[in-house]
Amino acid sequence: MRLPPSFFTALHDRVRAGLDEAGLDALLLDDPLDVAYLTGFAHFPNERPVVVYLPRAGEVLLLVPDLEREYAADQRAAATLVVYPEFPGERSPFAVLADAVDVAPRRLGHAASTSVGRVAAVAAAFPGAEPVTSDLVGRLRLVKTPEEIVLHTEAARIADAMLAEGARLVAAAGPDDLPTETELAGHVTRFGTRMMYAEHDDVVVVPMLTGGLVYGGANSAQPHRLPGGDRLRRGEPFMLSLGCAVGGRFVESERTFLLGEPTAEQRRYYEVVRLAQEVGTAALRPGTRCVDANRACLDVVRRAGLAGYLRHRQGHGIGLGFHEPPWVADGDETVLEPGMVLSSEPGVYVPGHAGYRISDTVLVTADGPERLTSYPRDLDRIVIGA
Amino acid sequence: MRLPPSFFTALHDRVRAGLDEAGLDALLLDDPLDVAYLTGFAHFPNERPVVVYLPRAGEVLLLVPDLEREYAADQRAAATLVVYPEFPGERSPFAVLADAVDVAPRRLGHAASTSVGRVAAVAAAFPGAEPVTSDLVGRLRLVKTPEEIVLHTEAARIADAMLAEGARLVAAAGPDDLPTETELAGHVTRFGTRMMYAEHDDVVVVPMLTGGLVYGGANSAQPHRLPGGDRLRRGEPFMLSLGCAVGGRFVESERTFLLGEPTAEQRRYYEVVRLAQEVGTAALRPGTRCVDANRACLDVVRRAGLAGYLRHRQGHGIGLGFHEPPWVADGDETVLEPGMVLSSEPGVYVPGHAGYRISDTVLVTADGPERLTSYPRDLDRIVIGA
Repeated sequence: MRLPPSFFTALHDRVRAGLDEAGLDALLLDDPLDVAYLTGFAHFPNERPVVVYLPRAGEVLLLVPDLEREYAADQRAAATLVVYPEFPGERSPFAVLADAVDVAPRRLGHAASTSVGRVAAVAAAFPGAEPVTSDLVGRLRLVKTPEEIVLHTEAARIADAMLAEGARLVAAAGPDDLPTETELAGHVTRFGTRMMYAEHDDVVVVPMLTGGLVYGGANSAQPHRLPGGDRLRRGEPFMLSLGCAVGGRFVESERTFLLGEPTAEQRRYYEVVRLAQEVGTAALRPGTRCVDANRACLDVVRRAGLAGYLRHRQGHGIGLGFHEPPWVADGDETVLEPGMVLSSEPGVYVPGHAGYRISDTVLVTADGPERLTSYPRDLDRIVIGA
Repeated sequence: MRLPPSFFTALHDRVRAGLDEAGLDALLLDDPLDVAYLTGFAHFPNERPVVVYLPRAGEVLLLVPDLEREYAADQRAAATLVVYPEFPGERSPFAVLADAVDVAPRRLGHAASTSVGRVAAVAAAFPGAEPVTSDLVGRLRLVKTPEEIVLHTEAARIADAMLAEGARLVAAAGPDDLPTETELAGHVTRFGTRMMYAEHDDVVVVPMLTGGLVYGGANSAQPHRLPGGDRLRRGEPFMLSLGCAVGGRFVESERTFLLGEPTAEQRRYYEVVRLAQEVGTAALRPGTRCVDANRACLDVVRRAGLAGYLRHRQGHGIGLGFHEPPWVADGDETVLEPGMVLSSEPGVYVPGHAGYRISDTVLVTADGPERLTSYPRDLDRIVIGA
């Protein structure tokens, strides 16, 4: 699944209109996800600059090293290629770009994520230009187009299927041959990858196709702990925190499973998180501020007396980035709009016991929140082998 | 395998000496690899700042979000933890850090890789400080210590074993059931991951444990093309371009295999690359400049009349970064020293036919180059099913 050329044409027009408004002559963007957004070219990011140059008038340029030339052409990048030989090279890659630019820019926009060293290298190659921080493309990326939502929806179908397959594998295991975290992570990743390649003929993903965090028992009390060699254990919860991308558009789908008849303590933690996710998800409506949705969501946990077990916010934007603005968190006053795609994923983390988190990827529509991922959340549906 | 506390103590002392020399009061580093280098804390990087603050006098601080607190303690990070609640949060994470700093810095160093937005956020939290770009830690990372070389050597053993396993799988396949690129990539990745978890009890890797590029035939003519669903084909070359990390220290080991009795054309391309890699690797000696090793290496390809098929330099540094300075390339005049670890990986890429590349990870010693990876390179050893 690939975005049609019309997606890029329309997007470039919107960026040009934004340049006019901001009084910028051109944008120079080096974030690999901005590059993919503006041209459709996905690549393995490394030290070699890959940069989009989008002027107010004139053609969009894509600066790539020679070793990406054929790959960019193959992907039908929506820009004119400008190729430099190698990095660092005898000349700066940005000098090669400057040669290809018709009208020297005076005010040249870049993202706040561009490094200090990179901005200095750009300034040296465009001596008449003043570098200006601009969030023009970042703001456009906040709201997904209908073509992008198709990709998110397809990714959601695959992520839910990966969850189901992980649960199936654990349910089918005998009491003495439960998988390790890595075995389970490998299994669901392979399953998702196979499904993608079987059903799509044009799967391009950078940097991650499918995968996620998989951990059980006390390990899962550390929200970003990486999967290890520990085996799942009967009587303990485990978490499948999975994500995947189609056409570069991510979703995440995460469930906490209870392995065996739940204890009263497990039920309590699970139900508080389920309710918090219900309330938080319902708050993801047009006109609501991120900070307020987050407060409504986490207040459920606080009112249940579990504030000490909170370790993170309700969620984050998701798109070309697995985590991207807006942040459904304290400190982000962004007002939600139709077309935004967000994770809704409150959790509680009880040191030495386990973590409990439920995450869905949610589309904000004019009518309210729509869950793109929809694996069951009821307690009796996430108990395995009771 | 984990670096001993003495590694970090000695390293912090060297950074402090460097701060004195550079007239800096402190360094603030936010590159996840610099963080791992200075504290041993590996994490899943995202928008939440994770930052090392290393002052000329006083304790080393590690700023982490609350959700990493227990994981950082578990990894025995070699620094005092400073924890902020969440991102973006009601207060800037850097304001939380500034509160924990005893003596306000005047000249505050950061890496050139720090983003423009991040530097502005730091400056706002340290109003008396002047941010200064510093490559102090980048320069230290160029030369690996004996403890680090042990980790690289172990990673090399695993990467070579992954190559052997990939070759074995292909050799065992019948003529009609050769694997697809993704199947082969998945197989060797699982093999490497299992070997690591079976033989090490403390495997922490971010962002990649094992894996690489796997492609055959015309696909392999695009050096950084990602593995796809195409099946390997008898009569065509295929490439296993694999890497892995132990204790966060990477190596790569890459071979081009010939599937079936080689044609004269395949032999010619392969032998030119093999010779270029031999010559280029021999040039990786103390006192040689990177630019000169690269020239000696690529000149072998040029003299053979294949200059039009070059797409990249000889190689790059490898360490905590899969690609890191120095660059064995035009434009890098770094003089090689004992303890540097480099890839040596010339290639030729013939559009519509195939790519040929051989990469080893090479340690520069006082006595000359030492290959850490050592999978066979002779033509008769890389032919499968002749």
